[in-house]
Amino acid sequence: MAVYTEVSDEALRAFLAGYDLGGLVAFRGIAEGVENSNYALRTTGGDFILTLYERRVDPAELPWFLGLMRHLAARGLACPQPVAGRDGEALRELAGRPAAICTFLPGVWPRRPSVAHCAPLGGALAALHAAGEGFPAERANALGPAGWAPLLERCRPNGDTVQPGLCAELDGHLAAILRDWPQGLPRGHIHADLFPDNVFFLPDPERRPRVSGLIDFYFACTDILAYDVAICLNAWCFEPDLAFNVTKARAVLAGYSRVRPLSAAEMAALPVLCRGAAVRFLLTRLYDWANTPAGAMVTRKDPLEYLRRLRFFAAAEEVSAYGI
Amino acid sequence: MAVYTEVSDEALRAFLAGYDLGGLVAFRGIAEGVENSNYALRTTGGDFILTLYERRVDPAELPWFLGLMRHLAARGLACPQPVAGRDGEALRELAGRPAAICTFLPGVWPRRPSVAHCAPLGGALAALHAAGEGFPAERANALGPAGWAPLLERCRPNGDTVQPGLCAELDGHLAAILRDWPQGLPRGHIHADLFPDNVFFLPDPERRPRVSGLIDFYFACTDILAYDVAICLNAWCFEPDLAFNVTKARAVLAGYSRVRPLSAAEMAALPVLCRGAAVRFLLTRLYDWANTPAGAMVTRKDPLEYLRRLRFFAAAEEVSAYGI
Repeated sequence: MAVYTEVSDEALRAFLAGYDLGGLVAFRGIAEGVENSNYALRTTGGDFILTLYERRVDPAELPWFLGLMRHLAARGLACPQPVAGRDGEALRELAGRPAAICTFLPGVWPRRPSVAHCAPLGGALAALHAAGEGFPAERANALGPAGWAPLLERCRPNGDTVQPGLCAELDGHLAAILRDWPQGLPRGHIHADLFPDNVFFLPDPERRPRVSGLIDFYFACTDILAYDVAICLNAWCFEPDLAFNVTKARAVLAGYSRVRPLSAAEMAALPVLCRGAAVRFLLTRLYDWANTPAGAMVTRKDPLEYLRRLRFFAAAEEVSAYGI
Repeated sequence: MAVYTEVSDEALRAFLAGYDLGGLVAFRGIAEGVENSNYALRTTGGDFILTLYERRVDPAELPWFLGLMRHLAARGLACPQPVAGRDGEALRELAGRPAAICTFLPGVWPRRPSVAHCAPLGGALAALHAAGEGFPAERANALGPAGWAPLLERCRPNGDTVQPGLCAELDGHLAAILRDWPQGLPRGHIHADLFPDNVFFLPDPERRPRVSGLIDFYFACTDILAYDVAICLNAWCFEPDLAFNVTKARAVLAGYSRVRPLSAAEMAALPVLCRGAAVRFLLTRLYDWANTPAGAMVTRKDPLEYLRRLRFFAAAEEVSAYGI
């Protein structure tokens, strides 16, 4: 939860003067998102989200993110649509930071995802992958396999303070994952961070959850499509006690496959992709754990939750061993 | 900034079933307010704020707070109005905590209050005091003069770690304040925490700031009305470098007096009331500073900012010495 940058009234008013959005009605910090500062903005023209880009986002990459969102929205995906100012530019500056206004999406993210959320989630992920086709520019995955060994090195000085022997265990997992990493699987633009707090739902007329929107595309990149599925299996299919819920995993895969069928090669690669996804979140959490100043306004997330996931996925060579 | 309590989808849906507010459209945590969890709630019936009461709020006092807000709103004050459920009750329970839905107020709180905000602020404070007349129940000020000496005792074990000699200096100030504390001044229901983040503004047709709403009544109590003015002089009239801005103070007093004239006795008491208000915020900040666990999701506020204010107000016996 985060608002890192306060925006003065004068700065906000001057910023909004660059848009055709009408008069300011309300402006509240949102307690969600840990990377950027987000404000709920209401004008006489409607509801919007104003994002100020902080810390981890490279300003040079923002045109790619905003371009992808525009491309996805134009193809019917329910995602935030960047709003251009009078001069046609969506990427602007506010309070010394890059900033953009996007459309507001209705919906509620599930605090406790149930099986009923998982098939719609899978379907929405596949729809995102399909809608991303045709967006020409690529963005390398900075937190993909090539980044894991360097990140582990940066964690090494403090990593074992979280759990003795952790770095050595990760050395072993990482060598195996990089050795087994699949080649030749279908690639495209992936979300790469589709956790429950990035997926909004509303009930359909039968009160079943329906995805109303996907948000937070600032880890999006161009990579193996099935790796995005593996991230969702990590993010959506473990219970609070970290038991793997195979019913949820089946629902994610079924929902995905109804929109974009997974090939036999993609299914066969899921175990190593899931191990890789577990390592990716373990390493960034481990780094943050060891490097977040005490008193920072961020909830540090426990890296060891992902060690549990990693060990689970590493215990089997084939997806059928998980019960899928 | 704070959302302390997460609300599950099922709990939220069951909670909303107790109201006639239509279907759920959106639900976002708000990064404002340090005492309670606040969510922006949108239903097909409109926009609302859902508050879960945490920590410092005594559940037994909630009916008084909600009753006061209802009384003030009925008398035309722009403040959150508690929304009753189908059974007529506004105070309910959600996620194991007392909870209430209130109406949404438009407006933006000023990150950097200017002179132009101060007269409207003063007028809104006086309007609050006038609107509070006739609300029969009283609530003692738990953070009033009688509470300061006990609070200082609770700060004593760690207080001097913030600044050597701090507790002894406060002993001296506190004895003088309690000796000089005025008797017989007009009393009523006061807000007692009317800082800039609790006052929303919107521009009027001439683009001058106009108060659009007052929020966060959970420190409200029954006390000396002019003490509320003294709190505002502390909260609104010091620059970031802690220089007192006499132009702002004059504007607060002028705005207030246009709605409810301050008597000569109230004006004469302002210096000691201002010293008391500075001590009140100094002590709660000092207590929090020494007792907030590292890593808590709350920005600790510097208690010494209020030592500077206290020293400023203590340097003069009469309000005219401040330049007012």
